[in-house]
Amino acid sequence: MARSLTSTTTLRLSTKAPIGTRLCIEDVNENVLKAKYAVRGPIPQRAEELKAELSRSDNKLPFKKIINANIGNPQQLGQKPLTFYREVLSLLQYPELIKTKAEYVKKVFSQDSIERAESLLRQVGSSVGAYSSSQGVQGFRETVAEFITKRDGEKAYADDIFLTGGASAAVTYILDILCKNDKSGVLIPIPQYPLYTATLALNNAHALPYYLNEEDGWSLDVEELENVILDSINKGIKPTCLVVINPGNPTGAVLKPEIMENIILLAAKYGLVIISDEVYQENVFFGKFHSMKQVLRQLQKKTKQNAYDHVQLASLHSTSKGVSGECGQRGGYMELVGFSDEIKQVFLKLSSISLCPVVTGQALVDLMVSPPKKGDLSYENDQKERADIYNALKTRSSKLWETFNNLEGISCQRPEGAMYLFPKIDIPPKAIKAAHDLNMTPDEFYCKELLENTGICTVPGSGFGQVPNTYHLRTTFLAPGTEWIKSWETFHKNFYNKYRD
Amino acid sequence: MARSLTSTTTLRLSTKAPIGTRLCIEDVNENVLKAKYAVRGPIPQRAEELKAELSRSDNKLPFKKIINANIGNPQQLGQKPLTFYREVLSLLQYPELIKTKAEYVKKVFSQDSIERAESLLRQVGSSVGAYSSSQGVQGFRETVAEFITKRDGEKAYADDIFLTGGASAAVTYILDILCKNDKSGVLIPIPQYPLYTATLALNNAHALPYYLNEEDGWSLDVEELENVILDSINKGIKPTCLVVINPGNPTGAVLKPEIMENIILLAAKYGLVIISDEVYQENVFFGKFHSMKQVLRQLQKKTKQNAYDHVQLASLHSTSKGVSGECGQRGGYMELVGFSDEIKQVFLKLSSISLCPVVTGQALVDLMVSPPKKGDLSYENDQKERADIYNALKTRSSKLWETFNNLEGISCQRPEGAMYLFPKIDIPPKAIKAAHDLNMTPDEFYCKELLENTGICTVPGSGFGQVPNTYHLRTTFLAPGTEWIKSWETFHKNFYNKYRD
Repeated sequence: MARSLTSTTTLRLSTKAPIGTRLCIEDVNENVLKAKYAVRGPIPQRAEELKAELSRSDNKLPFKKIINANIGNPQQLGQKPLTFYREVLSLLQYPELIKTKAEYVKKVFSQDSIERAESLLRQVGSSVGAYSSSQGVQGFRETVAEFITKRDGEKAYADDIFLTGGASAAVTYILDILCKNDKSGVLIPIPQYPLYTATLALNNAHALPYYLNEEDGWSLDVEELENVILDSINKGIKPTCLVVINPGNPTGAVLKPEIMENIILLAAKYGLVIISDEVYQENVFFGKFHSMKQVLRQLQKKTKQNAYDHVQLASLHSTSKGVSGECGQRGGYMELVGFSDEIKQVFLKLSSISLCPVVTGQALVDLMVSPPKKGDLSYENDQKERADIYNALKTRSSKLWETFNNLEGISCQRPEGAMYLFPKIDIPPKAIKAAHDLNMTPDEFYCKELLENTGICTVPGSGFGQVPNTYHLRTTFLAPGTEWIKSWETFHKNFYNKYRD
Repeated sequence: MARSLTSTTTLRLSTKAPIGTRLCIEDVNENVLKAKYAVRGPIPQRAEELKAELSRSDNKLPFKKIINANIGNPQQLGQKPLTFYREVLSLLQYPELIKTKAEYVKKVFSQDSIERAESLLRQVGSSVGAYSSSQGVQGFRETVAEFITKRDGEKAYADDIFLTGGASAAVTYILDILCKNDKSGVLIPIPQYPLYTATLALNNAHALPYYLNEEDGWSLDVEELENVILDSINKGIKPTCLVVINPGNPTGAVLKPEIMENIILLAAKYGLVIISDEVYQENVFFGKFHSMKQVLRQLQKKTKQNAYDHVQLASLHSTSKGVSGECGQRGGYMELVGFSDEIKQVFLKLSSISLCPVVTGQALVDLMVSPPKKGDLSYENDQKERADIYNALKTRSSKLWETFNNLEGISCQRPEGAMYLFPKIDIPPKAIKAAHDLNMTPDEFYCKELLENTGICTVPGSGFGQVPNTYHLRTTFLAPGTEWIKSWETFHKNFYNKYRD
């Protein structure tokens, strides 16, 4: 209850009163301490130090620049944004241009980008500087639903779409809601993208690892998956979600529909929510991407008795990957399929607490799923830009893959998609000993040596999970040119010569 | 361990196997269910329904549009963005313009906006489409540190600044880290901005409410605050943080330095982290804003024995409020003062899991804290735009305040700052009964009636907290014009005539 304040009284600190102290690490939330995110862990942090050192003229480093192959961040490495996207975003930020400087605007922006900006602004209703609805601008969600409908040949609905600040925000929403307590478990592929284990740690829930089969191109073994489920149930941990990353991060594997069908059967059998991380759906170099939603709908059509109508699926997409590569714009969406309205309301409430995803990022989602069409003024240039990026990525992934497989002690599965290679490195016993002496894991030691000798920054396999006593690393193939690949080759040979028994 | 996959086997669903079911509300995280966020609660949701109804030509509603006075969202209500901001953001999105269409760009953008965009792009290093460092672009953080140094006359450091996706993201980081477990408590002013209680609910920590003194202009009573602290300790709940909102949301009160000094004394005595929410620091109409950081530094200088060196302060700012009003751009920062490096590393790790705040929002923070200076080409226009917005807000807040205080049964403290009024409404017993019959709180009933009769959407005081058996509501004074104020006046008189005993 309110008490009347008579006058400002100054507190007197009695010398006997307990004097508070500064927080130490024991005072903070243990779940946050537990969470690990290797993509920006010790190796990338060391790379930042080296970057600072490089800027000093008297540095004695054996390389001229840091190659950030640790993170899928295409534009950091010089990938150009698609022109059409940026024309429209530029106009969205400054619509006064269209209104008051029309004669100039027509000379520097393509006519279809002007029309698109006008149409997006109408959908926003006011300005990209206003909060939108927490679920995202209705019109943009309708565009996403049209895209999914066309992609899958299966109807999608704007009400099922939540626009999010990249796919990371979507993962946080889903796991925050679905991890009921410390008896909840989430099935995670190993190797995995460490956002999943980090978010589970923050929620004090269990990661239930299922191993992908490296020798078979990182394929998913559904029997292994069911064994993990049964094992978990036996231990009193309730599996609630099943994470599938397709195309795989860090593996690059693209799932086949037969396997996906079996995943759905398992989800149906054990009442698991499928989280299908499909942010690399545009980055497919071999094989074909099938969305989990499409496979689910086809399975539902094939079977009677509505046996799969209770399957719940959250599928994720992002503007950060594909040929867009617009990581810093924080655009993404999730589609919620099969959830009850009651649960969808919980998602809506949680998203409302953070008000809304950045509106320009939302607009970028709209642009990504609905680029210029045949006949539009920007169509040909846009198609060319997309093809150039796609082909460069494909070529470089093959080049790096071939290099790895020609080196002693490295084997690497052929990447079918995504932006990464995850080679296995047979670390010689002498190097394992050297690593242990430095209190490092052998894969961390290899990545550290690679960084210190070449400036190439990668992430040790232990950050993603790997079969015990095997060692991997994740590298992107985004860096332009091939010189860095050659310097890696030289480093690796020297490393082997130094540590070979 | 990986098992060999021989061939794709199709699972057979045994009819005896347990068939999973769809999730129901009991399956989800109770902390998420507990969290409430009234600013987008039932009344605003009803407003959305009415908005849809209004668009039908045959609607019979007694008003022509919805006035969203429930949320501080200036541009939704027609406030124009500052031209300089948008010129720069437009160029950041499309830097090719500067490179290849320089002759046109010079005709439509001011020279200083072009130079500023070039300078910001150099600081970003590549493109606003690349992830930045998780703490935010170094150069932007330096600009923020310069701003704070100048504002307070006390040195600030870029290393202490974390750029965040609005202030909401900062609150989430702080409370996620500092709420150790279900024995942790956080002191929250009542009335409060419900983001705080929502985030505490998500963390399963305790909100420790301290009441502000309405009759004394919503002043903060430090004795009351200490009583709450002692009470909490007695109950076995450890107070870890103390939230101060200055200028107040929803109260509009601006804290005096003497009171702030006492708050710091308390924090020092009990080892509390001060969370100083200063997002309305530009919205001060009466009195003067003093930052908590400045008061802390001056106290540190005044006293010997380093008695306050262990005080830890997180202060928050945002691009969403002030005269910027750029809510949808999701820009903000927090300054961490007095924390150990160990704890700052935890903040860094947590922010790295969500990769980085949107880069254009980060750039907007830079623009907000360093607008055009005297002598710059845009200076005069920028100053005029700022003054126009500021004056319109000030005038409208006075107008609404006077209207309230001339009405039977409403009393309202004079707003010194922020964007809200939080009037107290004496709801007549007949109306209280009508509310109970509808299973609503009396303040909710008033807001519902106001909405259904006038289209004005507000938030019931119960969403912010209020002394039991008193009833309030929060309204912004952002909506242009005064017609809506008149329609409120008419509604209120009718409401009283209908329910007066």
